[in-house]
Amino acid sequence: MFELRVRPRFYETDAFGHINNTTVSGWFETAREPLFEIFAPTLNPTALNLILARTEIDFIAQLHYGADVVIRTAIEKIGNSSFVVVHEAFQKDVLAARGKAVQVCFDHQTQRSMPLSDSYRQQLEAHLIQQDNTAR
Amino acid sequence: MFELRVRPRFYETDAFGHINNTTVSGWFETAREPLFEIFAPTLNPTALNLILARTEIDFIAQLHYGADVVIRTAIEKIGNSSFVVVHEAFQKDVLAARGKAVQVCFDHQTQRSMPLSDSYRQQLEAHLIQQDNTAR
Amino acid sequence: MFELRVRPRFYETDAFGHINNTTVSGWFETAREPLFEIFAPTLNPTALNLILARTEIDFIAQLHYGADVVIRTAIEKIGNSSFVVVHEAFQKDVLAARGKAVQVCFDHQTQRSMPLSDSYRQQLEAHLIQQDNTAR
Amino acid sequence: MFELRVRPRFYETDAFGHINNTTVSGWFETAREPLFEIFAPTLNPTALNLILARTEIDFIAQLHYGADVVIRTAIEKIGNSSFVVVHEAFQKDVLAARGKAVQVCFDHQTQRSMPLSDSYRQQLEAHLIQQDNTAR
Repeated sequence: MFELRVRPRFYETDAFGHINNTTVSGWFETAREPLFEIFAPTLNPTALNLILARTEIDFIAQLHYGADVVIRTAIEKIGNSSFVVVHEAFQKDVLAARGKAVQVCFDHQTQRSMPLSDSYRQQLEAHLIQQDNTAR
Repeated sequence: MFELRVRPRFYETDAFGHINNTTVSGWFETAREPLFEIFAPTLNPTALNLILARTEIDFIAQLHYGADVVIRTAIEKIGNSSFVVVHEAFQKDVLAARGKAVQVCFDHQTQRSMPLSDSYRQQLEAHLIQQDNTAR
Repeated sequence: MFELRVRPRFYETDAFGHINNTTVSGWFETAREPLFEIFAPTLNPTALNLILARTEIDFIAQLHYGADVVIRTAIEKIGNSSFVVVHEAFQKDVLAARGKAVQVCFDHQTQRSMPLSDSYRQQLEAHLIQQDNTAR
Repeated sequence: MFELRVRPRFYETDAFGHINNTTVSGWFETAREPLFEIFAPTLNPTALNLILARTEIDFIAQLHYGADVVIRTAIEKIGNSSFVVVHEAFQKDVLAARGKAVQVCFDHQTQRSMPLSDSYRQQLEAHLIQQDNTAR
Protein backbone atom coordinates (compact mmCIF):
# COMPACT_ATOMS: atom_id res chain seq x y z
CA MET A 1 0.00 0.00 0.00
CA PHE A 2 1.27 3.48 -0.74
CA GLU A 3 -0.14 6.99 -0.57
CA LEU A 4 -0.31 10.04 -2.76
CA ARG A 5 -1.35 13.41 -1.38
CA VAL A 6 -2.91 15.70 -3.99
CA ARG A 7 -3.97 19.30 -3.63
CA PRO A 8 -7.19 19.85 -5.61
CA ARG A 9 -6.69 22.50 -8.28
CA PHE A 10 -9.23 25.21 -8.99
CA TYR A 11 -9.64 24.17 -12.63
CA GLU A 12 -10.51 20.65 -11.43
CA THR A 13 -13.77 21.94 -9.91
CA ASP A 14 -16.98 22.15 -11.94
CA ALA A 15 -20.14 24.25 -11.89
CA PHE A 16 -21.56 22.14 -9.04
CA GLY A 17 -18.82 23.72 -6.90
CA HIS A 18 -17.01 20.42 -6.31
CA ILE A 19 -14.23 18.44 -7.96
CA ASN A 20 -15.45 17.07 -11.28
CA ASN A 21 -15.58 13.28 -11.61
CA THR A 22 -13.17 13.22 -14.56
CA THR A 23 -10.49 14.68 -12.28
CA VAL A 24 -10.61 11.61 -10.06
CA SER A 25 -9.66 9.30 -12.93
CA GLY A 26 -6.61 11.54 -13.49
CA TRP A 27 -5.68 11.48 -9.80
CA PHE A 28 -5.96 7.68 -9.73
CA GLU A 29 -3.70 7.42 -12.80
CA THR A 30 -1.23 9.66 -10.98
CA ALA A 31 -1.50 7.50 -7.85
CA ARG A 32 -0.28 4.54 -9.93
CA GLU A 33 3.03 6.25 -10.71
CA PRO A 34 5.02 4.11 -8.20
CA LEU A 35 3.76 1.09 -10.16
CA PHE A 36 4.74 2.74 -13.45
CA GLU A 37 8.27 3.09 -12.00
CA ILE A 38 8.50 -0.69 -11.68
CA PHE A 39 8.16 -0.90 -15.47
CA ALA A 40 10.06 2.28 -16.35
CA PRO A 41 12.37 3.36 -13.50
CA THR A 42 13.10 6.76 -15.07
CA LEU A 43 9.45 7.15 -16.16
CA ASN A 44 10.50 7.45 -19.79
CA PRO A 45 7.14 6.96 -21.57
CA THR A 46 8.70 4.95 -24.40
CA ALA A 47 9.90 2.38 -21.84
CA LEU A 48 6.58 2.14 -20.00
CA ASN A 49 5.23 -1.25 -21.12
CA LEU A 50 1.77 -0.86 -19.63
CA ILE A 51 -1.70 -0.08 -20.90
CA LEU A 52 -4.95 0.46 -19.09
CA ALA A 53 -7.69 -2.06 -19.83
CA ARG A 54 -10.44 -1.06 -17.42
CA THR A 55 -11.35 1.45 -14.73
CA GLU A 56 -14.16 1.56 -12.18
CA ILE A 57 -14.85 4.47 -9.85
CA ASP A 58 -17.45 4.81 -7.11
CA PHE A 59 -18.12 8.43 -6.14
CA ILE A 60 -19.08 8.21 -2.47
CA ALA A 61 -18.83 11.77 -1.17
CA GLN A 62 -18.24 15.16 -2.74
CA LEU A 63 -14.65 16.31 -3.05
CA HIS A 64 -13.99 20.00 -2.41
CA TYR A 65 -11.44 22.59 -3.43
CA GLY A 66 -9.31 23.82 -0.52
CA ALA A 67 -8.31 20.64 1.33
CA ASP A 68 -5.78 17.93 0.48
CA VAL A 69 -6.87 14.52 -0.75
CA VAL A 70 -5.01 11.38 0.28
CA ILE A 71 -5.13 8.47 -2.16
CA ARG A 72 -4.25 5.01 -0.85
CA THR A 73 -3.30 2.54 -3.55
CA ALA A 74 -2.61 -1.20 -3.46
CA ILE A 75 -2.70 -4.22 -5.71
CA GLU A 76 -5.62 -6.59 -5.33
CA LYS A 77 -4.66 -9.32 -7.78
CA ILE A 78 -1.78 -10.25 -10.06
CA GLY A 79 -2.61 -12.30 -13.16
CA ASN A 80 -0.48 -13.67 -15.98
CA SER A 81 -0.04 -10.45 -17.94
CA SER A 82 -2.22 -8.04 -15.96
CA PHE A 83 -2.84 -6.80 -12.43
CA VAL A 84 -5.70 -5.08 -10.62
CA VAL A 85 -5.01 -1.87 -8.70
CA VAL A 86 -7.36 -0.54 -6.01
CA HIS A 87 -7.58 3.11 -4.94
CA GLU A 88 -9.31 4.94 -2.10
CA ALA A 89 -9.47 8.75 -1.94
CA PHE A 90 -9.97 10.46 1.41
CA GLN A 91 -10.57 14.12 2.12
CA LYS A 92 -10.62 15.21 5.79
CA ASP A 93 -10.67 11.48 6.68
CA VAL A 94 -13.88 10.89 4.71
CA LEU A 95 -13.76 8.19 2.03
CA ALA A 96 -14.89 10.15 -1.04
CA ALA A 97 -14.06 7.85 -3.95
CA ARG A 98 -12.98 4.29 -4.50
CA GLY A 99 -11.72 2.79 -7.73
CA LYS A 100 -10.10 -0.06 -9.58
CA ALA A 101 -7.80 -0.15 -12.57
CA VAL A 102 -6.77 -3.14 -14.63
CA GLN A 103 -3.30 -2.60 -16.09
CA VAL A 104 -1.88 -4.91 -18.75
CA CYS A 105 1.81 -5.45 -19.47
CA PHE A 106 2.03 -4.48 -23.14
CA ASP A 107 4.73 -4.34 -25.79
CA HIS A 108 4.11 -1.06 -27.66
CA GLN A 109 6.37 -2.29 -30.51
CA THR A 110 4.51 -5.49 -31.30
CA GLN A 111 1.21 -4.16 -29.94
CA ARG A 112 0.68 -7.30 -27.88
CA SER A 113 0.28 -8.05 -24.20
CA MET A 114 3.22 -9.75 -22.51
CA PRO A 115 3.41 -12.05 -19.47
CA LEU A 116 4.66 -10.26 -16.37
CA SER A 117 8.32 -11.16 -15.82
CA ASP A 118 9.36 -12.59 -12.46
CA SER A 119 11.09 -9.34 -11.63
CA TYR A 120 7.96 -7.26 -12.33
CA ARG A 121 5.84 -9.78 -10.45
CA GLN A 122 8.04 -9.65 -7.36
CA GLN A 123 7.98 -5.87 -7.22
CA LEU A 124 4.21 -5.79 -7.72
CA GLU A 125 3.71 -8.36 -4.94
CA ALA A 126 5.23 -5.94 -2.45
CA HIS A 127 2.05 -3.89 -2.82
CA LEU A 128 -0.38 -6.81 -2.77
CA ILE A 129 -3.15 -6.51 -0.20
CA GLN A 130 -2.92 -9.23 2.43
CA GLN A 131 -5.98 -11.45 2.09
CA ASP A 132 -7.54 -12.57 5.32
CA ASN A 133 -7.95 -16.35 5.04
CA THR A 134 -8.79 -17.14 8.69
CA ALA A 135 -12.50 -17.70 8.03
CA ARG A 136 -11.96 -20.22 5.26
CA MET B 1 -30.16 5.52 -28.24
CA PHE B 2 -28.45 8.69 -29.38
CA GLU B 3 -25.07 9.59 -30.80
CA LEU B 4 -22.37 12.15 -30.19
CA ARG B 5 -19.58 12.71 -32.67
CA VAL B 6 -16.39 14.06 -31.09
CA ARG B 7 -13.22 15.17 -32.78
CA PRO B 8 -10.23 14.12 -30.66
CA ARG B 9 -8.20 17.14 -29.59
CA PHE B 10 -4.41 17.19 -29.66
CA TYR B 11 -4.13 17.95 -25.94
CA GLU B 12 -6.24 14.83 -25.26
CA THR B 13 -3.41 12.61 -26.51
CA ASP B 14 -0.64 11.38 -24.20
CA ALA B 15 2.99 10.33 -24.54
CA PHE B 16 1.92 6.89 -25.83
CA GLY B 17 0.72 8.76 -28.94
CA HIS B 18 -2.95 7.89 -28.35
CA ILE B 19 -5.91 9.44 -26.59
CA ASN B 20 -5.39 9.31 -22.82
CA ASN B 21 -7.86 7.22 -20.83
CA THR B 22 -8.99 10.17 -18.70
CA THR B 23 -10.25 11.86 -21.87
CA VAL B 24 -12.76 9.07 -22.44
CA SER B 25 -14.46 9.70 -19.10
CA GLY B 26 -14.89 13.33 -20.21
CA TRP B 27 -16.30 12.32 -23.59
CA PHE B 28 -18.78 9.96 -21.92
CA GLU B 29 -19.91 12.75 -19.57
CA THR B 30 -20.40 14.94 -22.64
CA ALA B 31 -22.34 12.16 -24.37
CA ARG B 32 -24.83 12.25 -21.50
CA GLU B 33 -25.76 15.88 -22.21
CA PRO B 34 -29.12 14.95 -23.87
CA LEU B 35 -29.97 13.25 -20.56
CA PHE B 36 -28.85 16.31 -18.60
CA GLU B 37 -31.30 18.34 -20.73
CA ILE B 38 -34.18 16.23 -19.37
CA PHE B 39 -33.34 17.54 -15.90
CA ALA B 40 -32.24 21.06 -16.90
CA PRO B 41 -33.64 22.02 -20.34
CA THR B 42 -31.45 25.14 -20.62
CA LEU B 43 -28.47 23.27 -19.10
CA ASN B 44 -28.25 25.79 -16.27
CA PRO B 45 -25.95 23.95 -13.84
CA THR B 46 -27.85 25.17 -10.77
CA ALA B 47 -30.98 23.42 -12.12
CA LEU B 48 -29.22 20.16 -12.97
CA ASN B 49 -30.45 17.79 -10.23
CA LEU B 50 -28.10 14.95 -11.02
CA ILE B 51 -24.92 13.53 -9.57
CA LEU B 52 -22.66 10.75 -10.75
CA ALA B 53 -22.40 7.74 -8.44
CA ARG B 54 -20.29 5.32 -10.44
CA THR B 55 -18.44 4.90 -13.73
CA GLU B 56 -16.93 1.88 -15.45
CA ILE B 57 -14.89 2.00 -18.63
CA ASP B 58 -13.40 -0.84 -20.68
CA PHE B 59 -10.61 0.30 -22.98
CA ILE B 60 -10.81 -2.12 -25.90
CA ALA B 61 -8.76 -0.52 -28.67
CA GLN B 62 -6.48 2.50 -28.91
CA LEU B 63 -8.09 5.80 -29.86
CA HIS B 64 -6.09 8.05 -32.17
CA TYR B 65 -5.82 11.74 -32.94
CA GLY B 66 -7.00 12.63 -36.45
CA ALA B 67 -10.28 10.71 -36.86
CA ASP B 68 -13.74 11.34 -35.42
CA VAL B 69 -15.14 9.20 -32.62
CA VAL B 70 -18.82 8.28 -32.50
CA ILE B 71 -20.29 7.64 -29.06
CA ARG B 72 -23.57 5.72 -28.86
CA THR B 73 -25.41 6.20 -25.58
CA ALA B 74 -28.51 4.54 -24.16
CA ILE B 75 -30.12 3.78 -20.82
CA GLU B 76 -29.83 0.23 -19.52
CA LYS B 77 -31.93 0.43 -16.37
CA ILE B 78 -34.08 2.94 -14.53
CA GLY B 79 -34.36 2.60 -10.75
CA ASN B 80 -36.22 4.56 -8.10
CA SER B 81 -33.89 7.55 -7.91
CA SER B 82 -31.11 6.50 -10.26
CA PHE B 83 -30.49 5.19 -13.77
CA VAL B 84 -27.70 3.37 -15.55
CA VAL B 85 -26.31 4.79 -18.79
CA VAL B 86 -24.28 2.71 -21.27
CA HIS B 87 -21.80 4.15 -23.78
CA GLU B 88 -19.90 2.70 -26.73
CA ALA B 89 -17.17 4.69 -28.51
CA PHE B 90 -16.27 3.80 -32.10
CA GLN B 91 -13.43 5.13 -34.24
CA LYS B 92 -13.37 4.09 -37.90
CA ASP B 93 -16.12 1.56 -37.03
CA VAL B 94 -13.94 -0.15 -34.40
CA LEU B 95 -15.38 -0.38 -30.89
CA ALA B 96 -12.63 1.29 -28.85
CA ALA B 97 -14.23 1.84 -25.45
CA ARG B 98 -17.37 0.84 -23.61
CA GLY B 99 -18.64 2.32 -20.37
CA LYS B 100 -21.38 2.65 -17.81
CA ALA B 101 -22.42 5.55 -15.62
CA VAL B 102 -24.81 5.49 -12.69
CA GLN B 103 -26.53 8.87 -12.34
CA VAL B 104 -28.59 9.73 -9.27
CA CYS B 105 -31.37 12.31 -9.12
CA PHE B 106 -30.12 14.64 -6.40
CA ASP B 107 -31.35 17.79 -4.68
CA HIS B 108 -28.26 20.01 -4.36
CA GLN B 109 -30.10 22.17 -1.78
CA THR B 110 -30.91 19.42 0.70
CA GLN B 111 -27.96 17.24 -0.44
CA ARG B 112 -30.21 14.21 -0.74
CA SER B 113 -31.19 11.86 -3.55
CA MET B 114 -34.75 12.25 -4.86
CA PRO B 115 -37.06 9.73 -6.53
CA LEU B 116 -37.28 10.25 -10.29
CA SER B 117 -40.53 12.06 -11.10
CA ASP B 118 -42.93 10.48 -13.61
CA SER B 119 -42.01 13.15 -16.14
CA TYR B 120 -38.27 12.44 -15.80
CA ARG B 121 -38.93 8.70 -15.92
CA GLN B 122 -40.97 8.94 -19.12
CA GLN B 123 -38.31 10.96 -20.89
CA LEU B 124 -35.56 8.60 -19.75
CA GLU B 125 -37.58 5.57 -20.93
CA ALA B 126 -37.43 6.90 -24.48
CA HIS B 127 -33.72 5.99 -24.44
CA LEU B 128 -34.09 2.63 -22.70
CA ILE B 129 -32.47 -0.29 -24.52
CA GLN B 130 -35.04 -2.85 -25.63
CA GLN B 131 -34.36 -6.04 -23.68
CA ASP B 132 -34.62 -9.26 -25.61
CA ASN B 133 -36.89 -11.52 -23.55
CA THR B 134 -37.43 -14.26 -26.12
CA ALA B 135 -35.15 -16.76 -24.44
CA ARG B 136 -36.82 -16.55 -21.04
CA MET C 1 -10.04 32.82 -41.76
CA PHE C 2 -11.77 29.64 -40.65
CA GLU C 3 -14.19 28.66 -37.91
CA LEU C 4 -14.53 25.97 -35.30
CA ARG C 5 -17.77 25.43 -33.43
CA VAL C 6 -17.29 23.86 -29.99
CA ARG C 7 -19.91 22.71 -27.55
CA PRO C 8 -18.75 23.51 -24.00
CA ARG C 9 -18.48 20.35 -21.90
CA PHE C 10 -19.71 20.14 -18.34
CA TYR C 11 -16.28 19.17 -17.00
CA GLU C 12 -14.87 22.34 -18.62
CA THR C 13 -16.82 24.50 -16.16
CA ASP C 14 -15.41 25.48 -12.77
CA ALA C 15 -16.80 26.39 -9.36
CA PHE C 16 -17.55 29.94 -10.56
CA GLY C 17 -20.23 28.32 -12.75
CA HIS C 18 -18.51 29.30 -16.01
CA ILE C 19 -16.00 27.77 -18.40
CA ASN C 20 -12.57 27.67 -16.75
CA ASN C 21 -9.83 29.73 -18.38
CA THR C 22 -7.60 26.72 -18.97
CA THR C 23 -10.30 25.27 -21.25
CA VAL C 24 -9.96 28.19 -23.64
CA SER C 25 -6.30 27.43 -24.28
CA GLY C 26 -7.36 23.90 -25.23
CA TRP C 27 -10.12 25.17 -27.54
CA PHE C 28 -7.67 27.51 -29.25
CA GLU C 29 -5.20 24.66 -29.79
CA THR C 30 -8.07 22.67 -31.30
CA ALA C 31 -9.02 25.63 -33.51
CA ARG C 32 -5.51 25.47 -35.02
CA GLU C 33 -6.06 21.94 -36.33
CA PRO C 34 -6.58 23.09 -39.97
CA LEU C 35 -3.12 24.65 -39.70
CA PHE C 36 -1.72 21.43 -38.22
CA GLU C 37 -3.07 19.64 -41.29
CA ILE C 38 -0.82 21.78 -43.51
CA PHE C 39 2.17 20.23 -41.74
CA ALA C 40 0.73 16.74 -41.20
CA PRO C 41 -2.14 16.04 -43.64
CA THR C 42 -3.20 12.85 -41.81
CA LEU C 43 -2.59 14.49 -38.40
CA ASN C 44 -0.07 11.82 -37.49
CA PRO C 45 1.61 13.41 -34.46
CA THR C 46 5.07 12.12 -35.42
CA ALA C 47 4.81 14.06 -38.70
CA LEU C 48 3.59 17.29 -37.10
CA ASN C 49 6.67 19.53 -37.31
CA LEU C 50 5.32 22.32 -35.14
CA ILE C 51 5.81 23.52 -31.60
CA LEU C 52 4.12 26.26 -29.64
CA ALA C 53 6.36 29.11 -28.52
CA ARG C 54 3.90 31.56 -26.98
CA THR C 55 0.24 32.09 -26.17
CA GLU C 56 -1.73 35.14 -25.09
CA ILE C 57 -5.39 35.12 -24.11
CA ASP C 58 -7.67 37.99 -23.14
CA PHE C 59 -10.75 36.88 -21.24
CA ILE C 60 -13.37 39.46 -22.19
CA ALA C 61 -16.70 37.95 -21.16
CA GLN C 62 -17.75 34.86 -19.24
CA LEU C 63 -18.29 31.68 -21.24
CA HIS C 64 -21.20 29.49 -20.17
CA TYR C 65 -22.16 25.85 -20.35
CA GLY C 66 -25.18 25.20 -22.59
CA ALA C 67 -24.50 27.28 -25.72
CA ASP C 68 -22.11 26.71 -28.62
CA VAL C 69 -18.92 28.74 -28.98
CA VAL C 70 -17.66 29.82 -32.40
CA ILE C 71 -13.91 30.32 -32.72
CA ARG C 72 -12.63 32.35 -35.67
CA THR C 73 -8.99 31.76 -36.47
CA ALA C 74 -6.62 33.47 -38.90
CA ILE C 75 -2.92 34.11 -39.39
CA GLU C 76 -1.62 37.55 -38.53
CA LYS C 77 1.99 37.25 -39.57
CA ILE C 78 4.31 34.75 -41.22
CA GLY C 79 8.01 34.89 -40.31
CA ASN C 80 11.00 32.86 -41.40
CA SER C 81 10.37 29.77 -39.29
CA SER C 82 7.32 30.82 -37.29
CA PHE C 83 3.84 32.30 -37.70
CA VAL C 84 1.37 34.11 -35.45
CA VAL C 85 -2.19 32.81 -35.19
CA VAL C 86 -5.08 34.94 -33.89
CA HIS C 87 -8.27 33.56 -32.37
CA GLU C 88 -11.60 35.08 -31.36
CA ALA C 89 -14.22 33.10 -29.40
CA PHE C 90 -17.86 34.17 -29.60
CA GLN C 91 -20.81 32.83 -27.61
CA LYS C 92 -24.27 34.08 -28.59
CA ASP C 93 -22.50 36.67 -30.79
CA VAL C 94 -20.59 38.12 -27.83
CA LEU C 95 -16.80 38.21 -28.12
CA ALA C 96 -15.78 36.32 -25.00
CA ALA C 97 -12.08 35.63 -25.53
CA ARG C 98 -9.33 36.66 -27.90
CA GLY C 99 -5.92 35.06 -28.23
CA LYS C 100 -2.66 34.69 -30.08
CA ALA C 101 -0.38 31.72 -30.58
CA VAL C 102 3.13 31.72 -31.97
CA GLN C 103 3.85 28.40 -33.69
CA VAL C 104 7.36 27.44 -34.78
CA CYS C 105 8.23 24.98 -37.53
CA PHE C 106 10.35 22.45 -35.66
CA ASP C 107 12.22 19.27 -36.48
CA HIS C 108 11.50 16.90 -33.58
CA GLN C 109 14.43 14.68 -34.69
CA THR C 110 17.15 17.33 -34.56
CA GLN C 111 15.27 19.41 -31.96
CA ARG C 112 15.79 22.57 -34.02
CA SER C 113 13.51 25.09 -35.65
CA MET C 114 13.32 24.95 -39.45
CA PRO C 115 12.55 27.64 -42.03
CA LEU C 116 9.01 27.37 -43.39
CA SER C 117 9.15 25.74 -46.83
CA ASP C 118 7.57 27.54 -49.79
CA SER C 119 4.77 24.99 -49.82
CA TYR C 120 3.98 25.52 -46.11
CA ARG C 121 4.22 29.28 -46.57
CA GLN C 122 1.79 29.32 -49.49
CA GLN C 123 -0.79 27.28 -47.62
CA LEU C 124 -0.45 29.46 -44.51
CA GLU C 125 -0.83 32.63 -46.61
CA ALA C 126 -4.32 31.51 -47.61
CA HIS C 127 -5.36 32.25 -44.02
CA LEU C 128 -3.44 35.52 -43.67
CA ILE C 129 -5.54 38.48 -42.52
CA GLN C 130 -5.73 41.15 -45.19
CA GLN C 131 -3.95 44.24 -43.86
CA ASP C 132 -5.55 47.57 -44.67
CA ASN C 133 -2.76 49.73 -46.11
CA THR C 134 -4.87 52.59 -47.45
CA ALA C 135 -3.89 55.03 -44.72
CA ARG C 136 -0.15 54.60 -45.18
CA MET D 1 7.92 35.41 -4.20
CA PHE D 2 6.69 31.93 -3.42
CA GLU D 3 7.14 28.47 -4.90
CA LEU D 4 4.96 25.56 -5.93
CA ARG D 5 6.46 22.17 -6.69
CA VAL D 6 4.34 20.11 -9.10
CA ARG D 7 4.86 16.54 -10.20
CA PRO D 8 3.93 16.24 -13.91
CA ARG D 9 1.11 13.74 -14.39
CA PHE D 10 1.11 11.17 -17.18
CA TYR D 11 -2.20 12.43 -18.60
CA GLU D 12 -0.64 15.91 -18.86
CA THR D 13 1.73 14.68 -21.58
CA ASP D 14 0.77 14.72 -25.25
CA ALA D 15 1.68 12.76 -28.38
CA PHE D 16 4.92 14.75 -28.75
CA GLY D 17 6.06 12.94 -25.59
CA HIS D 18 6.21 16.13 -23.50
CA ILE D 19 3.89 18.07 -21.22
CA ASN D 20 1.14 19.68 -23.30
CA ASN D 21 1.03 23.48 -23.32
CA THR D 22 -2.51 23.62 -21.91
CA THR D 23 -1.22 21.91 -18.76
CA VAL D 24 1.07 24.85 -18.01
CA SER D 25 -1.85 27.28 -17.84
CA GLY D 26 -3.40 24.96 -15.24
CA TRP D 27 -0.17 24.76 -13.24
CA PHE D 28 0.14 28.55 -13.25
CA GLU D 29 -3.46 28.91 -12.02
CA THR D 30 -2.57 26.46 -9.24
CA ALA D 31 0.58 28.43 -8.44
CA ARG D 32 -1.64 31.46 -7.73
CA GLU D 33 -3.46 29.67 -4.91
CA PRO D 34 -1.58 31.54 -2.13
CA LEU D 35 -2.94 34.73 -3.75
CA PHE D 36 -6.44 33.25 -3.90
CA GLU D 37 -6.14 32.65 -0.14
CA ILE D 38 -5.76 36.39 0.40
CA PHE D 39 -9.24 36.85 -1.05
CA ALA D 40 -10.81 33.64 0.31
CA PRO D 41 -8.83 32.30 3.31
CA THR D 42 -10.70 28.97 3.34
CA LEU D 43 -10.63 28.81 -0.49
CA ASN D 44 -14.43 28.66 -0.59
CA PRO D 45 -15.07 29.40 -4.30
CA THR D 46 -18.16 31.51 -3.57
CA ALA D 47 -15.99 33.87 -1.50
CA LEU D 48 -13.21 34.13 -4.09
CA ASN D 49 -13.72 37.63 -5.51
CA LEU D 50 -11.28 37.31 -8.38
CA ILE D 51 -11.46 36.76 -12.11
CA LEU D 52 -8.78 36.24 -14.68
CA ALA D 53 -8.54 38.93 -17.38
CA ARG D 54 -5.45 37.90 -19.32
CA THR D 55 -2.72 35.29 -19.53
CA GLU D 56 0.54 35.14 -21.45
CA ILE D 57 2.85 32.15 -21.57
CA ASP D 58 6.25 31.74 -23.24
CA PHE D 59 7.22 28.14 -23.79
CA ILE D 60 11.00 28.17 -23.59
CA ALA D 61 12.03 24.53 -23.18
CA GLN D 62 10.21 21.21 -23.27
CA LEU D 63 8.78 19.93 -20.03
CA HIS D 64 9.01 16.19 -19.42
CA TYR D 65 7.16 13.55 -17.46
CA GLY D 66 9.23 12.07 -14.61
CA ALA D 67 10.83 15.09 -12.93
CA ASP D 68 9.37 17.74 -10.61
CA VAL D 69 8.67 21.26 -11.82
CA VAL D 70 9.23 24.25 -9.56
CA ILE D 71 7.07 27.29 -10.24
CA ARG D 72 8.20 30.64 -8.81
CA THR D 73 5.43 33.21 -8.57
CA ALA D 74 5.48 36.89 -7.67
CA ILE D 75 3.48 40.06 -8.26
CA GLU D 76 4.83 42.51 -10.79
CA LYS D 77 2.33 45.35 -10.45
CA ILE D 78 -0.69 46.28 -8.36
CA GLY D 79 -3.31 48.52 -9.94
CA ASN D 80 -6.57 49.97 -8.68
CA SER D 81 -8.70 46.85 -9.03
CA SER D 82 -6.26 44.44 -10.65
CA PHE D 83 -2.77 43.01 -10.27
CA VAL D 84 -0.25 41.32 -12.53
CA VAL D 85 1.24 37.98 -11.49
CA VAL D 86 4.45 36.58 -13.00
CA HIS D 87 5.39 32.91 -13.09
CA GLU D 88 8.54 31.00 -13.99
CA ALA D 89 8.57 27.20 -14.32
CA PHE D 90 11.85 25.32 -13.89
CA GLN D 91 12.56 21.64 -14.46
CA LYS D 92 16.01 20.35 -13.47
CA ASP D 93 17.03 24.02 -13.04
CA VAL D 94 16.15 24.87 -16.65
CA LEU D 95 13.66 27.70 -17.18
CA ALA D 96 11.01 25.96 -19.29
CA ALA D 97 8.08 28.40 -19.24
CA ARG D 98 7.40 31.95 -18.17
CA GLY D 99 3.98 33.57 -17.85
CA LYS D 100 1.86 36.45 -16.71
CA ALA D 101 -1.69 36.59 -15.41
CA VAL D 102 -3.82 39.66 -14.87
CA GLN D 103 -6.29 39.06 -12.04
CA VAL D 104 -9.16 41.45 -11.35
CA CYS D 105 -10.94 41.89 -8.03
CA PHE D 106 -14.54 41.13 -8.96
CA ASP D 107 -17.89 41.01 -7.21
CA HIS D 108 -19.61 37.88 -8.57
CA GLN D 109 -22.96 39.16 -7.19
CA THR D 110 -23.01 42.49 -9.01
CA GLN D 111 -20.77 41.20 -11.83
CA ARG D 112 -18.51 44.25 -11.53
CA SER D 113 -14.87 44.82 -10.78
CA MET D 114 -14.07 46.28 -7.36
CA PRO D 115 -11.14 48.40 -6.14
CA LEU D 116 -8.64 46.37 -4.13
CA SER D 117 -9.19 47.06 -0.42
CA ASP D 118 -6.25 48.28 1.68
CA SER D 119 -6.10 44.90 3.39
CA TYR D 120 -5.92 43.01 0.07
CA ARG D 121 -3.37 45.51 -1.24
CA GLN D 122 -1.11 45.11 1.78
CA GLN D 123 -1.12 41.33 1.55
CA LEU D 124 -0.45 41.44 -2.20
CA GLU D 125 2.44 43.89 -1.69
CA ALA D 126 4.25 41.24 0.37
CA HIS D 127 4.78 39.35 -2.89
CA LEU D 128 5.69 42.38 -5.02
CA ILE D 129 8.97 42.04 -6.91
CA GLN D 130 11.51 44.58 -5.73
CA GLN D 131 12.26 46.90 -8.64
CA ASP D 132 15.88 47.87 -8.99
CA ASN D 133 15.96 51.65 -9.45
CA THR D 134 19.67 52.22 -8.81
CA ALA D 135 20.56 52.78 -12.46
CA ARG D 136 17.90 55.41 -13.09
